[in-house]
Parts: sequence; structure tokens; C-alpha cells
Amino acid sequence: MNRFLDLADFERDEIVALLDLARRLEARPEPHALAGKILGLLFFNPSLRTLASFQAGMARLGGTSFVITPGQGSYLMETRLGAVMNGAAAEHVREGIPVLASYCDALGIRAFGEARSLADDLGETSFKAMTALLDKPLINLESAANHPCQALADWKTLDDYAVPRGGRFVLSWAYHPRALPLAVPAAATHMAAMRGMEVIVLRPEGFGLPAPLLEKARRAAAASGGSVRETADRDDALAGAHVVYAKEWGSTAHYGDPEADARLRAALTGWCVRESWFARAAPDCRLMHCLPVRRNTAVADEVLDGPRSVVQREAQNRMIAQMAVLYRLLKGA
Amino acid sequence: MNRFLDLADFERDEIVALLDLARRLEARPEPHALAGKILGLLFFNPSLRTLASFQAGMARLGGTSFVITPGQGSYLMETRLGAVMNGAAAEHVREGIPVLASYCDALGIRAFGEARSLADDLGETSFKAMTALLDKPLINLESAANHPCQALADWKTLDDYAVPRGGRFVLSWAYHPRALPLAVPAAATHMAAMRGMEVIVLRPEGFGLPAPLLEKARRAAAASGGSVRETADRDDALAGAHVVYAKEWGSTAHYGDPEADARLRAALTGWCVRESWFARAAPDCRLMHCLPVRRNTAVADEVLDGPRSVVQREAQNRMIAQMAVLYRLLKGA
Amino acid sequence: MNRFLDLADFERDEIVALLDLARRLEARPEPHALAGKILGLLFFNPSLRTLASFQAGMARLGGTSFVITPGQGSYLMETRLGAVMNGAAAEHVREGIPVLASYCDALGIRAFGEARSLADDLGETSFKAMTALLDKPLINLESAANHPCQALADWKTLDDYAVPRGGRFVLSWAYHPRALPLAVPAAATHMAAMRGMEVIVLRPEGFGLPAPLLEKARRAAAASGGSVRETADRDDALAGAHVVYAKEWGSTAHYGDPEADARLRAALTGWCVRESWFARAAPDCRLMHCLPVRRNTAVADEVLDGPRSVVQREAQNRMIAQMAVLYRLLKGA
Repeated sequence: MNRFLDLADFERDEIVALLDLARRLEARPEPHALAGKILGLLFFNPSLRTLASFQAGMARLGGTSFVITPGQGSYLMETRLGAVMNGAAAEHVREGIPVLASYCDALGIRAFGEARSLADDLGETSFKAMTALLDKPLINLESAANHPCQALADWKTLDDYAVPRGGRFVLSWAYHPRALPLAVPAAATHMAAMRGMEVIVLRPEGFGLPAPLLEKARRAAAASGGSVRETADRDDALAGAHVVYAKEWGSTAHYGDPEADARLRAALTGWCVRESWFARAAPDCRLMHCLPVRRNTAVADEVLDGPRSVVQREAQNRMIAQMAVLYRLLKGA
Repeated sequence: MNRFLDLADFERDEIVALLDLARRLEARPEPHALAGKILGLLFFNPSLRTLASFQAGMARLGGTSFVITPGQGSYLMETRLGAVMNGAAAEHVREGIPVLASYCDALGIRAFGEARSLADDLGETSFKAMTALLDKPLINLESAANHPCQALADWKTLDDYAVPRGGRFVLSWAYHPRALPLAVPAAATHMAAMRGMEVIVLRPEGFGLPAPLLEKARRAAAASGGSVRETADRDDALAGAHVVYAKEWGSTAHYGDPEADARLRAALTGWCVRESWFARAAPDCRLMHCLPVRRNTAVADEVLDGPRSVVQREAQNRMIAQMAVLYRLLKGA
Repeated sequence: MNRFLDLADFERDEIVALLDLARRLEARPEPHALAGKILGLLFFNPSLRTLASFQAGMARLGGTSFVITPGQGSYLMETRLGAVMNGAAAEHVREGIPVLASYCDALGIRAFGEARSLADDLGETSFKAMTALLDKPLINLESAANHPCQALADWKTLDDYAVPRGGRFVLSWAYHPRALPLAVPAAATHMAAMRGMEVIVLRPEGFGLPAPLLEKARRAAAASGGSVRETADRDDALAGAHVVYAKEWGSTAHYGDPEADARLRAALTGWCVRESWFARAAPDCRLMHCLPVRRNTAVADEVLDGPRSVVQREAQNRMIAQMAVLYRLLKGA
């Protein structure tokens, strides 16, 4: 394993084996496994869990890490090929990223999309321009349309709570004051489909997941015995649900148009997940969210503070799942 | 020992034992004592000494640490219970803090008060909302009305210079362009009282320490043979002083009212500690300050650069004292 | 060796020995050489290579490091002696720097000049005010008129590519939207002269290197058999060149006057290094740049992406050369 950029780059069995490794490292720590190894972490966007859990996970395996944040202590970086750099960016990723890679044994990169062109973001134009520069071990810390570390942690969380492999996984759109990226909805949908679940994407009109994301999830579902469908009908989606995965994202009908998006979402403040949503769900239906979550805006206190919330376990599993990724990348099989 | 939040949570003997441990680690380093342990450091406010000394101290014990700064690389955090989060804060401390704690073995938190309500800040409303979320080893890196790490380092500094246990400790208000928190004045007063000193709080009218802080210090003094009083009379206070602890703080008569505070302090620029202040003090009277200090505004160059200043030793003792705290929290007795 | 502030503080043989040590550590890593040692890194200005390579290099030798960035998580610092600190800076370097030094075994400081007075910047007024406070191992991470870590890495890069000791080294001014410091041009000129090269400073009128910098380089050249001259004639300079070291810097004729500088450089956008510049250079003439570089503004894509560019090797050598410096400072000979 040389890169961890997308769960879809792996067979289902390989992900299952990676989760087995995560559980093994959780049960039997190996505090010197990565002694002498260095992880570089490059953050073009804010982070709490990723920033802390990768540093902590690397340390728990005996390695070290450094963090670079362009625009905060480090230079703003240009990503466009051929750019005439007479603006704010002092450094091009074509220099900066190979340089950072030369200092470390593995590099993690967080680079959201620009949220202007759906085609660019789905195609990971900007992220691929960076990853193409390297053949060193590389980790996607969240790109325009993917977040494989979150997906891996979420899969482990489903396993930890013994959520049935074929259970109903409802990815529900939730309200947020502004448009957020598609990375987590895309990754969660694909992950649950790859796990073999009955995936239902519940979202208001104008927020349907783009066809390429649905198709990718459906390919994974086809291989694992799962299914993927979309609906705007909450009652239909939530009946018998084993998991509600709440997530905020921007309008796909008005992608890259914040004003049109804002007009559409203004009427959708009711999409705050409340306990009443779970009336017809399975008795022990779980509430998942990748965090950060805006309380009483996306999800109500009563749900987050109640027994069905597993958001803390998801976050803790970030570190545990990523330790398995680091182990495979830096120590091998 | 599971928490280090307030010197008042401990018996005097326990603090003395902690300082003994600090001196032992200073004399005989234990570079592997905390191997494999991880310290999380969460800073809601700026820092130099705390930020550097905890990282360095943890490393000197063989452990590692990570730093999270909401608003600088990490999300702004909400602290109010029940908040409808449709503003700037993307994450609530109810998620963020337990998540960070799950990645580390001990968590340190710096969270100043909001300087709006004296009752809230004295009651540590915001800090307690965070610490109540955890039962993991926890360190107060400075809250609204406390700074136990500074107090512990200051106590060690008094010992290092053999300042008499019953000596006169003058906490003197010093000028600053704007209102600063009560954390250090509160902690220093209580510490010196707990050590058994004759504590005099010297301050202009309008800047008296709030009654609950004085009462807390007096309880400590009663147990240790010390005393605590306030005065606005500089000659009275400084006569025979063994220590002048200079500190800037906001008007308590106009707490949370920056305009009224500014009008009051405009006439107080003379409260810059100068060598002449020490004319009737004990011959080797020390100048203490927690730093950062504004030169020639709060304390004159002639004092800071002269032989009575022990501010460097105080700062160095931050690391040494904190190493004892980390040792007790993470290795036990 | 107790300080690494300027290549000129060392004999040529000492630098050669330091580079031998760098090559030895590159070939035969010593992952425990600096176990238990702590490096403090203080950045008054942005950084990517220095920030990452010192942390990574220290880790590769078994040590640890911490980073302090005044104004980003830490207090703004005052440098002027005698300042009445009633402005933005909360801490004076006279407190802050010795405090940080007391937490670590070696301290690195990056502090550019103020770009107001040429005399102050050439005299390193501000940097010397900091280094005079300490006798602890100290590293210049780039000051107003020096960058010895870059110079050492560049020397190693010249060796790595077997550039002849007496070869022609052309430091060429390159266009940038605004004035940049003299640190790298000064350090590169001096380094190449000290190596024994034929150094030519190619720059437009108004951008000549200040006489003290040329004199310093000529003294080094005299001792090593090299030479140093300036010219504005590109054809003359580049004929037979073995190295073109591109670098942007501010007008020395209008130092500290951004408007006059801007008027002068407006006509100089043609000073973007292109492949055509190398028509009469030596066949394997190298392109060097310390990075960050503005593509298609200072240097064209065709050069940076072509075979003559060694900028990645320069950057990688930062870590390797600095590991030798850390080794000498913290482990001795």
C-alpha cells in the first residue's frame, strides 16, 4: 500500500483487513512500530480531528510529525498549472509539495475544492495536480469530493456498534448557514454501499448527489450486495433505519452559486435532526456525524446528548483507523 | 492526582511535595518517564511560555504533545449550553473537547473569561462547562480567574531565592493600556497566602480584588499562618517588602465596561514599577512578574534589567514545575 | 561550535568539514544522536522549508522541537531597546527570547529586517539585539542580510552536482511584484565566493548589492581563489555560466522606499529567467533558487520544469545540511 486516497482504490477485503489491523493496534498497541518515521501534514483548510488525531496516532506508533498551514505561518500556494504568479500566492504546489515530501516518509494533504465548478471538484482537479507530483506514501486528509479517513473510521464505528451489514443507512442532508463541500456525503455514501448496506440519501430538492457520485456508490453496492437510492421523503427514508448519518452540503443544482444556494436553503431550517425523526426508525438507530456539527442548527442537543449518538466514537476511530493506514504505508504488510 | 486546576484543590503539604518532585526532576532528569504518553494542548488564547514550556517539558520526560488553536487552523468553538449555532463557531466544546481528550493521555486547556460578567468569570462558568465534560487528566493552562501552573512556578521561585515563608509579598497593580484578566492576581495572592506569607494587595481605588478572591486567599492564609490585606498606600505596602509581584488587571469597580475602565486607568500611568519604589523595601527585595510584561509601561527597564528581577527564573520554573504536574498526572505517585 | 549565524564566522575548512558531516549523516543516519535534545524555533516571518526541515531534521536525529510564531498564537514582540511598550507588542525580546532559550537546548530565530534603513539591515541591528541576549546554541534561520542555512545547503548542492570549484556562478536578479530582502543574495554571493567560484552579480541599475556585502564576499573570494564582480550586462554574465542563481530583491538605490522601488521595477518584468537565457551558458548550466519562487514571474515554467533546475535538491539539502549544524551544536565534534 503506497497511497490512501480513496476507499474505491481498494477491494472490499482489503478494507476489511485494514479495519482488522486497526482493531489489533487498538487492542495491542505497538508503540515503536514507526520509530524514526516522519509524517508531514499539509493543511490548506481548517481541521481539529484530522490535525490532532494524525499527530497523536503517529506518536502512539513511535513516529513524529510536522504540520504546515499555507497562509498561517507558511506561504499561500498556487495550484493552477501555467499560472503567472504575480498575485497573493508566493509558492506553487509544484515546488512546495515535493519539497515537503522530501523531508518526510509520508505526506498527508487536506485540500478542499474551490466550490466553483462541479466538474472540477468531482474530478479532483486541484487535488490530483498535487498528488501527481509524488510517488511517496500519500494520504488524503479530505479533498473536494472524498474523505477516506473519515469513511474508514465510520465503517469501524458501524462495526463497533454491530450495525447489520445489510442494515438501512440513511445519509440525511442537514441545515447549515452556508454551502459545505461534498466530500463527506460522497465518502459516507460510498463507504456504506461498499460495506453492503441499504443506502438511502435523504435530501431536499436541489441537493441531490451528483450522478457520478451515485454511480460510484452503486458500483460498490453491486459488488457487496448493497443498494443506493435517493429520496426527498423523510418518512420513507427513516422507516426502519439503523443509522442516520447527518451531513450538511451545498446545493448541487446551484453548485458554485452561493446566492442561489442561500435562497434555496433559507426555507430548509427544519432540516435539523431531532429525536422525533427517529419515531419509525429501528429501536437502536444510531446518529452519526463526522463533526464539527452545529448544535440546534444541523442536529438538536437532544439527539447529540442522547444515547443514539455515536459521534464521539466516530471521532475516536479517526485516530485508530488512521494508525492502521500509517502502519500499512510506513511499515508495510 | 487526576486534575491540576487550582492550588486550592490541594493541601499545602501536597503542593510542597509537588515542588519537591519538581526539584528532583530538575536535579535528576527522567528522560523516559512519560514515554508513549501524549499531551493535548488546547489554546483559546495566545501564549508563549505555556505553549513552549509544556511542549518542552513533555519532551524532556519522553512524551509528546500536540497543539490545537481554535480560530487558527482549527474551528472556532461555542461554549454556551443550548446555543443555536448559526454564527461563527462551527464546533461546540461538548464535541471538540471530549474528542481531543480521546486522542491524548492528558489535556491542558487555556480559556480566559469573557470579561463581561464578574460573577461568571469568578465562577469559572465557561471553564467549568469544559472541564465537566471529562474525567481524563486535565490541566488548567489559565482560566478566567486562575493560573495554577504560574502559581506553582512562582512558589518554586520564592523557594529558589529563599524568600522567607513569612515574608512580605506585595502584589502591586501595574499600568497597562487596557484591562487584563484577574487570573494571575487571583492565583498569586492565593499562592503566597497558602505559602504562609504576609500578602498585601496594593492597587488604586477601583481595582480592589473581588471579595470572593480575597476570602479564598484568607482561608489559605489562616491554614498556613499567613495574612492577606489590601491597600492603596504604596509607602505602607512596600515598607519592608520581600517581594513586589507586579501585575496588570482590569477595574473591578467597572468590570466588563471597557470605557469606564479606560477613564479610570488614564490617570494611572504612574503605576509603572520603578527602582525608586524599593527605597524602603527589604534590601534584597525581588521583583516578580508572570510575563509578558510591557517595559516602561508596567515595569521600567531599570528594574527588569537590574539584579532584583527574577522574572526569568519564574518563566524557567514554569517548565520545571509543570514537569512535576505531568509526572504526577501521567505516572502517578 | 556554539552558534551558526554566518558562514563568515567559520574558516573555509570548517564549512567543508560541516558538509562532510552532512554527507555522512545522509549516508549513515544516526537516529538517536540527539535523543533528549530540544530545538526551539522562533519565527517572526513566514516559512515553509525552514519550518518543516528543522522539525524533520531534528526528528531524524532523535530530538524534538517546538515552534513559536509571534502574532499567531503567541504575543507580538518588541525589539527596540528602551521602548515604551504601549502599542501592539505585549512582550519584549529581552524577556521572550531568554525564556524560550531556557526551555530548549538550541534556539533558531528567523527575523527579517524592517526594510527601512539599509544601515540597520546590513548591520543586523534587530537580529543582534536578540542574539546578544543569549550564549546558548543559536541558529540564524534568516536575518535581515543573511541566511547561512540556505548558503550551506546551496554549497552542498553545488558539490552534489560536481559544479567546478572555480566555475562561473551568476547570481541574477529576477522580477517580483515587490521588494524582497537582501538575505539570500548576500548569503549566496558570499557562499559562492567562499567556495572559490567566479561570482558575477547580474542585476539591473538600481539593484546593485551594497558595498559592504560585496566587500565581505570579496574577502572570502580572496582567501579561496575566487572573484566577485557586478554587471548589468546579461550576455556578458551568462556566457559560460555554470550556475544561474535566480533571486528577487529590492532596489538598493531606493532602499526602504516602496514607491520608488515600484516605479523602478515596473519596467523590469523581462527579468524572468527563461530557457533562452542559457544559450551561451555552459552545456549543463544549473538553475538554482532558494524557493519560494513565483513561476512565470521570476522564473519560467520551462526552466523550473526542465533538466537544469536543481531547486528541489537545494530544498532537500536544507534538511541534510541543517542536521550537520544541529549535530555539531548539540553533540559537539
